[in-house]
Amino acid sequence: MSQLGMLIIVSAPSGTGKNAVIRELTKKDSNIFYSVSATTRNPRNKEENGVNYFFLSREKFENMIINKQLIEWDEYVNNYYGTPKKFIEDMTKKGNDVILEITVEGAVNVKEIWPEAVMIFLLPPSMEELRNRITNRNTECIESINKRMISAESELKYVNDYEYVVINDDLAYAVNQIEEIIHAERLKTIRNKNIVNKLVRRKK
Amino acid sequence: MSQLGMLIIVSAPSGTGKNAVIRELTKKDSNIFYSVSATTRNPRNKEENGVNYFFLSREKFENMIINKQLIEWDEYVNNYYGTPKKFIEDMTKKGNDVILEITVEGAVNVKEIWPEAVMIFLLPPSMEELRNRITNRNTECIESINKRMISAESELKYVNDYEYVVINDDLAYAVNQIEEIIHAERLKTIRNKNIVNKLVRRKK
Repeated sequence: MSQLGMLIIVSAPSGTGKNAVIRELTKKDSNIFYSVSATTRNPRNKEENGVNYFFLSREKFENMIINKQLIEWDEYVNNYYGTPKKFIEDMTKKGNDVILEITVEGAVNVKEIWPEAVMIFLLPPSMEELRNRITNRNTECIESINKRMISAESELKYVNDYEYVVINDDLAYAVNQIEEIIHAERLKTIRNKNIVNKLVRRKK
Repeated sequence: MSQLGMLIIVSAPSGTGKNAVIRELTKKDSNIFYSVSATTRNPRNKEENGVNYFFLSREKFENMIINKQLIEWDEYVNNYYGTPKKFIEDMTKKGNDVILEITVEGAVNVKEIWPEAVMIFLLPPSMEELRNRITNRNTECIESINKRMISAESELKYVNDYEYVVINDDLAYAVNQIEEIIHAERLKTIRNKNIVNKLVRRKK
């Protein structure tokens, strides 16, 4: 099947475990790639250009904004972060699927620009479990944990903007469910116009 | 998950192998049931009431039409055939999925009454292969084969009314693809309002 790849948007409240899910998914399916963001912040430790981020100067980044080369961008603590359009276009043209992990506000904007994107909301099994997971990281004080919980609640209000919900209770099970969503989406009639047209046109 | 079951509509040109696909699917997944049609024709051989068909008198069938107890019906060679609404309602309320194998015209009508139904069009790998399959049955003369091929062509024009297309080249592969569609559909946000509401409502 010479089919275009898909853009798959994944959002989840912090602590749901979306990074582990996406890492596992891209490891299992060699056709799925993680969307590499662009940023103006400096590389940390072993971060590599083009792998973890595209590291850009402010001038270069602002040029990309002006030239509409980003499908979404934001500024956070004096640094820009954004999603280069070209990376996604190149990948999907080759038939690869691209996973974009993004905030709920960003996701809604991307869907407007890329209406054929598949939107998946990853949910924690319960809010109690979400709090446990954040607490067990042992990296945050109680105020920061409470703040994350409040954010999570307001993020969950966007769930109806997403087509699919997956509960991340068991990692392997959640990954498997996302794979099934991706496989089913590849069978959508609108993504298979070529096959259908060819079959109908050739007749007899 | 105490989720409602789904109505899954499957259509395919005669010869595509939809009966084998559905048989295999209901054998593999004990949650999926074949929709039993009602008919006024007499039972043949080992056909059982409630298994192969609900065998009804013309009077009973006509009452069902009048009382809107059929989601679709048709008359063919002086006998009525139709799909009882109650069977599907009972099954889906219990959380079981129901497969309805139906003509393209019937499918469009059912989707109007049952908009949350999932519509799958099963395709032959090619029109040549479809002709081979019909020919190899050795049950039909050339005129009848040609007639089936003309029907197939006009049925294929409805493909865009269906959400999914599955090519029946390899039986096991096609069955697997339909299972993935069903699993993905169960993850649709609109089918999981309860879970989402519960999570959001309970908070903290």
